[in-house]
Amino acid sequence: MNNPAPKSNKPQTAITPTRADDFPGWYQAVIKAADMAENSSVRGCMVIKPYGFALWENIQKYFDAIIKELDVQNAYFPLLIPMSYLAKEAEHVEGFAKECAVVTHHRLEQGPNGGLIPAESAKLEEPLIIRPTSETIIGESMAKWVQSYRDLPLKLNQWCNVLRWEMRTRLFLRTAEFLWQEGHNAFETYDDAKEDALKMVHAYADFAEQYMAIPVFRGEKTEDERFPGAINTYAMEAMMQDGKALQAATSHNLGQNFAHSSEIKFQGREGKEEFAWTTSWGMSTRTIGGMIMVHGDDDGMIMPPRLAPVQIQIIPVMKDDRDQALLDYCDALKKQLKAKGLRAAVDSSEARTPDKMWGCVKKGVPIRVEIGGREMAEGKLTHVRRDIGKDSKATVSVDEFVNGAEKLLAEIHDALFARAKKFRDEHVFEVKTIKEVAEFFAAEKVGFCKVDTALLQEKEWETVKKEYSLTPRCMPFEFNGAKVLIAKSY
Amino acid sequence: MNNPAPKSNKPQTAITPTRADDFPGWYQAVIKAADMAENSSVRGCMVIKPYGFALWENIQKYFDAIIKELDVQNAYFPLLIPMSYLAKEAEHVEGFAKECAVVTHHRLEQGPNGGLIPAESAKLEEPLIIRPTSETIIGESMAKWVQSYRDLPLKLNQWCNVLRWEMRTRLFLRTAEFLWQEGHNAFETYDDAKEDALKMVHAYADFAEQYMAIPVFRGEKTEDERFPGAINTYAMEAMMQDGKALQAATSHNLGQNFAHSSEIKFQGREGKEEFAWTTSWGMSTRTIGGMIMVHGDDDGMIMPPRLAPVQIQIIPVMKDDRDQALLDYCDALKKQLKAKGLRAAVDSSEARTPDKMWGCVKKGVPIRVEIGGREMAEGKLTHVRRDIGKDSKATVSVDEFVNGAEKLLAEIHDALFARAKKFRDEHVFEVKTIKEVAEFFAAEKVGFCKVDTALLQEKEWETVKKEYSLTPRCMPFEFNGAKVLIAKSY
Repeated sequence: MNNPAPKSNKPQTAITPTRADDFPGWYQAVIKAADMAENSSVRGCMVIKPYGFALWENIQKYFDAIIKELDVQNAYFPLLIPMSYLAKEAEHVEGFAKECAVVTHHRLEQGPNGGLIPAESAKLEEPLIIRPTSETIIGESMAKWVQSYRDLPLKLNQWCNVLRWEMRTRLFLRTAEFLWQEGHNAFETYDDAKEDALKMVHAYADFAEQYMAIPVFRGEKTEDERFPGAINTYAMEAMMQDGKALQAATSHNLGQNFAHSSEIKFQGREGKEEFAWTTSWGMSTRTIGGMIMVHGDDDGMIMPPRLAPVQIQIIPVMKDDRDQALLDYCDALKKQLKAKGLRAAVDSSEARTPDKMWGCVKKGVPIRVEIGGREMAEGKLTHVRRDIGKDSKATVSVDEFVNGAEKLLAEIHDALFARAKKFRDEHVFEVKTIKEVAEFFAAEKVGFCKVDTALLQEKEWETVKKEYSLTPRCMPFEFNGAKVLIAKSY
Repeated sequence: MNNPAPKSNKPQTAITPTRADDFPGWYQAVIKAADMAENSSVRGCMVIKPYGFALWENIQKYFDAIIKELDVQNAYFPLLIPMSYLAKEAEHVEGFAKECAVVTHHRLEQGPNGGLIPAESAKLEEPLIIRPTSETIIGESMAKWVQSYRDLPLKLNQWCNVLRWEMRTRLFLRTAEFLWQEGHNAFETYDDAKEDALKMVHAYADFAEQYMAIPVFRGEKTEDERFPGAINTYAMEAMMQDGKALQAATSHNLGQNFAHSSEIKFQGREGKEEFAWTTSWGMSTRTIGGMIMVHGDDDGMIMPPRLAPVQIQIIPVMKDDRDQALLDYCDALKKQLKAKGLRAAVDSSEARTPDKMWGCVKKGVPIRVEIGGREMAEGKLTHVRRDIGKDSKATVSVDEFVNGAEKLLAEIHDALFARAKKFRDEHVFEVKTIKEVAEFFAAEKVGFCKVDTALLQEKEWETVKKEYSLTPRCMPFEFNGAKVLIAKSY
């Protein structure tokens, strides 16, 4: 044989390292190959590049419609919070004071060495912190806006940036500044607030399953894992392909803790002054990290179709320099798909066809369409599913494709979800003792352990928890608090 | 006559004070009555309430679609900028250093008196500033992303919060923190950048006229009024009802200034390394202040129909406690209007009917619909235009209203625009000397003075400018720099 022997038996992959070789390295490489984000020179802060941001815009668009249906109103509250506000709620200050960016001056001036320095004469009397979350500042407004039970429920949300100073950061998963929505609702009764906190965690979980194609466990956090100041925290927990957990969104029943500290009071139905019951709930750009680690493969990102910035990428396969007729044919197809409400794009760049195809793979576009001169002549096109690859290659008429595209995207969504759910379900292990938990993680097994919640009271748990960096992720609702999932986590 | 004599000849108004009595006081009262925003306890920062924020969301929605059509890509860059970045461009630092919020610490701790203090051990080596605008930090990314002329043009935009420490603030018009979009484009040639900066000011001006119903002067800023670091600044200037100018958006041709300071270099078509030519362009929540001051009247806000959070408010006029059949009738109407893509709402609250009607007036809802038992029985409704008031009251069939609603809203838009344009055109006065400018403003006349631009070179101008707090607003394009508009401004 004249062909050189392949260097290894492994198939070539577009991403190096592979998941099996180095999962965190693979994660960074996928983001880079898909051109989604990069680290900025500002410590802990990321730049979300257009392709990554388009994904976030779709999350915003669809989830915003969902919360508007729930009668939540968007508003905007200040970025800066007086330092003293944070201290109003005892657990809250404990939870956030250690990671606050603090604004102390409001002017720069020339320093003695010529460079800029904060101007001493512009030192703030009370430092301000950049919001790590907005319970305290929104609570202040709620206290003004709520006078009577008739003003309740009051349901507010803001899409904004928040900042929590993090020492070890990772694109999307843990950055000092991140983007999120934070909802803050106030109610007349405990029951209303509890119902709302539960409703919102299900709203998140439904969104994760129906839009992100990520199966999640819905459940309650154990006491130690609650949001600082909450009486109950509900979360949806997803399993990444390395077996670690990612908490993709949380919903908190804050009881009357923040109503007391912010004095959110109202005249009740009996004429008596009462404190409101509040909830808060948030979902952030972390979810993008979750989508990468649940769906991506060794060739790069796989976008869940309903959120994909581009659902269908059309690649004109040009023989010579520039085939305008073929480009027009592709554009006409794009217009037909757009008319159906689908996000389609034509790659008319000067790049080589194989580079365009691999770009499409690495970016995780759900459906790639290839059209050459012959397909054009026959009124046809060739399409390939990103999740399956070349085995799904099919040549069909343009009409057939256009009419079936939405269904095909739905099938891809279902397939991604099923694949992720199968993986997850195969990696949850019910064990009986903390010792078995320790053995599981000592053996570097991949997945979650499910144990009786009572075991967390055992002294041994504290040791095992620290040794393997474990946390109780959540107590799934279906076991009514009796079972808890234990995992390593992001 | 048994009726008591009216206290004055003035008609009663919903807003006190009136525009004529106290324009700034009227402005604040309109915002309060329409429930759009309020001051927060954080110095200089505002809370944008749901009704005000819904207006901003519509601005975002429609303008975002416009810039996406121009192939601009949204992205997100860090909130915090290293202090030294600001200093990279000489004029830029001069313009912004005096109003920067400075982050100096990244942790709080318990102080000696029990309260919180910034932790000395968490002092930053280099202070960070909260972005007052993002040329420098986006320039850093552009420098990485642009390698060759093939990477150009690069067109980026972000919707975000920025902060400029202001001593005297006013809701929407001038707040320390505000929301905006900032576009940052990079090009291969001077001509491309100049064309882009012009294109964007026209995009803003078209948006102001077609969505906000605000007539604007499109023109170039004089040298003194340019953005710090720009070689040309283009603006659209609107006239408020007190004759002052509001710069509602600006577009800057930055030449190669920021490309030099951020090292945005590329390999040109001839293989030589070249610096890029950049532009930046922004529109902020100030525009909301402009809409209030251009359209509002002594009964409150008047929302331009294409941006109005609620375009049609339906008020069930209930005789007794709660007429479910009437509410259902109103809901059915709302659904019909929504199906036509219109923003309609039913006020089913327990408030009294006159309060609902006045609420609607003060919030500036373009069309108010009133439906009582008799209207329902006849399949009819009564509608009133906010801009005209009771003289526009008409009772028509539901079908007729539903089919004509979009046209009616367009008519209201046109009427608002025409009214504002008439007012503006009647308040621009061409004068021949700086002395006449001084006389105009000394007499407290309302409006702009139009003068030969050459007059700004006269020594007298500096005195007059200071005495009456005037600025050259812009040199309208149609005079090719020969004429300039002078006004007081927000």
